Amino acid sequence: MVAEQLTAPDPETLVSEAKTAFRDGAMLTVQARCEVEYEGRTSGYLGPGDRILVAKPDGTFLVHQPTGHKPVNWMPGGGSVSARTSENEAVLLARRTNPSERVEVRILEAHGLTRYDATDGATYEESGTEAEMHEYIDQNPDVLEDGLRIVEHERESKYGFIDFFARDEAGTPVVVEVKRIQATLNHFDQLQRYVSLYEEGDASPHGGGVTAGEDVRGMLVAPSASERVRRALRDNGLEFVELSEFDTDAKGATEAKLTDF
Amino acid sequence: MVAEQLTAPDPETLVSEAKTAFRDGAMLTVQARCEVEYEGRTSGYLGPGDRILVAKPDGTFLVHQPTGHKPVNWMPGGGSVSARTSENEAVLLARRTNPSERVEVRILEAHGLTRYDATDGATYEESGTEAEMHEYIDQNPDVLEDGLRIVEHERESKYGFIDFFARDEAGTPVVVEVKRIQATLNHFDQLQRYVSLYEEGDASPHGGGVTAGEDVRGMLVAPSASERVRRALRDNGLEFVELSEFDTDAKGATEAKLTDF
Repeated sequence: MVAEQLTAPDPETLVSEAKTAFRDGAMLTVQARCEVEYEGRTSGYLGPGDRILVAKPDGTFLVHQPTGHKPVNWMPGGGSVSARTSENEAVLLARRTNPSERVEVRILEAHGLTRYDATDGATYEESGTEAEMHEYIDQNPDVLEDGLRIVEHERESKYGFIDFFARDEAGTPVVVEVKRIQATLNHFDQLQRYVSLYEEGDASPHGGGVTAGEDVRGMLVAPSASERVRRALRDNGLEFVELSEFDTDAKGATEAKLTDF
Repeated sequence: MVAEQLTAPDPETLVSEAKTAFRDGAMLTVQARCEVEYEGRTSGYLGPGDRILVAKPDGTFLVHQPTGHKPVNWMPGGGSVSARTSENEAVLLARRTNPSERVEVRILEAHGLTRYDATDGATYEESGTEAEMHEYIDQNPDVLEDGLRIVEHERESKYGFIDFFARDEAGTPVVVEVKRIQATLNHFDQLQRYVSLYEEGDASPHGGGVTAGEDVRGMLVAPSASERVRRALRDNGLEFVELSEFDTDAKGATEAKLTDF
């Protein structure tokens, strides 16, 4: 939760808030016009400009300009970040030893500050690509439903690519969306959009397939899904097919979380 | 300047504020408990946790957990970031084509939001190391002042390393701080601290050098300095020596700035 949020804090307030954030192990974000110095393997200077500064409780420090995905200056975790006033301006200093490095930011005008008590025990879980799952389904459509017939794989529509366009045993069109990770509400969203578009008439630029007014089934295929996602699908007349053979190693992920603390 | 700062915005407000930020080319920062999905070369999922999200006007999107200097998920500039509500939650979607990738963040609870109209025309200027400058001064102390005699290079004190400890023609001790970049107020700060400490008595762990009460001169050496830094030094009885032969290519830096706009 956000412990404090200030617009245009003065230098003394900024330093005091920063110290509180460092003491509490909170994440500190500062929007400010500032100048930056780096001293370490080389020396460097970044003249005045508006940037976002982020200090994390592990000593990570980031300086982000308004463009680009890389911080213009940064310090990895392991060191420390401190705050002080100097000549009536706030200064944030991130430093570490071995190698000896420092990033020092002089804040010429602070625009915003946020102290954030953040708790995050989650670990990013990477899965393979969807391609292998697509191939498996393409060759074994029965794993989705007995008698299901794939009409087209990666069907282009006016609204993007549908993973599979299929027809069930009764001939009803089925829009199939395949996900390699645990199904989320975003996936539900996406499937719902596709189905609605198909129901409004044929969404294929090549024509043929669905007649306006014809019923369209929507099927989300994933290794797993939470009860919440299953309920959202059910409540909206959509279906879920669990292909647990593509599940990631849940045990490994749990272990990773435990060691994170 | 900060255009808007909100604590615990509801999903509709968050989406509306995000859209305003995207429209205005502002930097958007959101503190939130969220889950993250990545789809591209691989697939990935990050379960619920507290993170800082940053969206830049160039399409850069960053998801930062409370530790580590690397974003757990990110998208480089060039794509686009959009916001929508879904199942009464706010969703931020960053995507690009070629390669086709998307990072989708479902915000389970928003804690803070800041819209920041940031202007930054500055370019980071890297210089060589200070070592070459030290060597030059060590071999040519006269460039600092006629008759100056280096007593010790990188003198250890209780308070850190002094670049040079010297004595002038009259035998007065001189603390010399050398900077490879344009002198800043932080450098002035540092020099002032060192000089004060020396004036309180000898700061050397090896003893010998300065007698308590003895006058100590402080000298900042850098390729250049702004009028503000020169004034701060002057007003506090400290000196500046410009070694313009170590100046970075000011012309190049100016050109870089011009092309930035």
